[in-house]
Amino acid sequence: MARWQSGSRERLAEAALRLFATQGFERTTVAEIATEAGLTERTFFRYFADKREVLFAGSERFEAGFLDGVAASGATTPMALVTASLRQAAEFFTEDRRAWSRSRAVVVAANPALQERELHKMGGVVETLTAALVERGVDAVTAGLAAETGVSVFRRAFAAWIAEGESRPFAELQDELLTRLQALLGSP
Amino acid sequence: MARWQSGSRERLAEAALRLFATQGFERTTVAEIATEAGLTERTFFRYFADKREVLFAGSERFEAGFLDGVAASGATTPMALVTASLRQAAEFFTEDRRAWSRSRAVVVAANPALQERELHKMGGVVETLTAALVERGVDAVTAGLAAETGVSVFRRAFAAWIAEGESRPFAELQDELLTRLQALLGSP
Repeated sequence: MARWQSGSRERLAEAALRLFATQGFERTTVAEIATEAGLTERTFFRYFADKREVLFAGSERFEAGFLDGVAASGATTPMALVTASLRQAAEFFTEDRRAWSRSRAVVVAANPALQERELHKMGGVVETLTAALVERGVDAVTAGLAAETGVSVFRRAFAAWIAEGESRPFAELQDELLTRLQALLGSP
Repeated sequence: MARWQSGSRERLAEAALRLFATQGFERTTVAEIATEAGLTERTFFRYFADKREVLFAGSERFEAGFLDGVAASGATTPMALVTASLRQAAEFFTEDRRAWSRSRAVVVAANPALQERELHKMGGVVETLTAALVERGVDAVTAGLAAETGVSVFRRAFAAWIAEGESRPFAELQDELLTRLQALLGSP
């Protein structure tokens, strides 16, 4: 999967991330991104509404993973449903995406407005996952707690996955954290 | 404990919250707060560095609760330490503080900058609690997971405690959530 090597969209995304990383998100213009990618602004706007969308373009598909995992699972306990959700979401983070995710995280961490958007995105996942659990018969309080705990595990797995020098797959890191979580509460 | 009924500090805090709630945090000046409290700006600045500090003045004591709980506990498992931490933190939220907390939450929710500060505050609690667990011999990964899970429970207990019409004490609501969390992970 040469996701980031071909096509105008990919070239624009790579160029944008390179510029965000070197000169800052705020200081980078769409014109500069287009030039860096060897394309026109017009082409840029065919793919992205604005420069911020370069960083958040995959959000719907990312969020959908969490829901698909619940939908495809025959599990009946809340935590088994959350585990199914997280395992499906993990498939989004393929090896060819790791370098991009790593650079993206540095750009987001450097900009409060982007951080806020990112937090909002993850808050949205907690909400939709909660709703999906409720739909499967889990009471609202437990569903909220289960969804938030699951998303905490996901975020920590993500941080580990993009850490310098880490090479294990996302799913493996996340499963390890899920096991730790179980152990945590299995031994009150 | 007539915490909010006497003293200049309390009068200023009450006046500020009343104005923030009715005319918005941004639009309220320190001069207006002082006038509303029947005091001078000079007096205001004896107690608070700026108007934002009215809303975050108790933060150190609030955070200290989480740490004191760990320090005073003889527990050896991570989750028992987190439970001790949460129970100590709950003592901050006495009945005479509920109305204030309720109004404060509305003001914070209406202002993105205040929300960010609040998130930052809770992020600080996760970090210091993680460090306290590590100091008690818990490995860093488990400590981070335990601290974040604990703070999620705390935040949900807080939201329940300030909900319209809720009259049960903070500690009771929080213990109920902790029980649910245990049940959640006891049944994989």
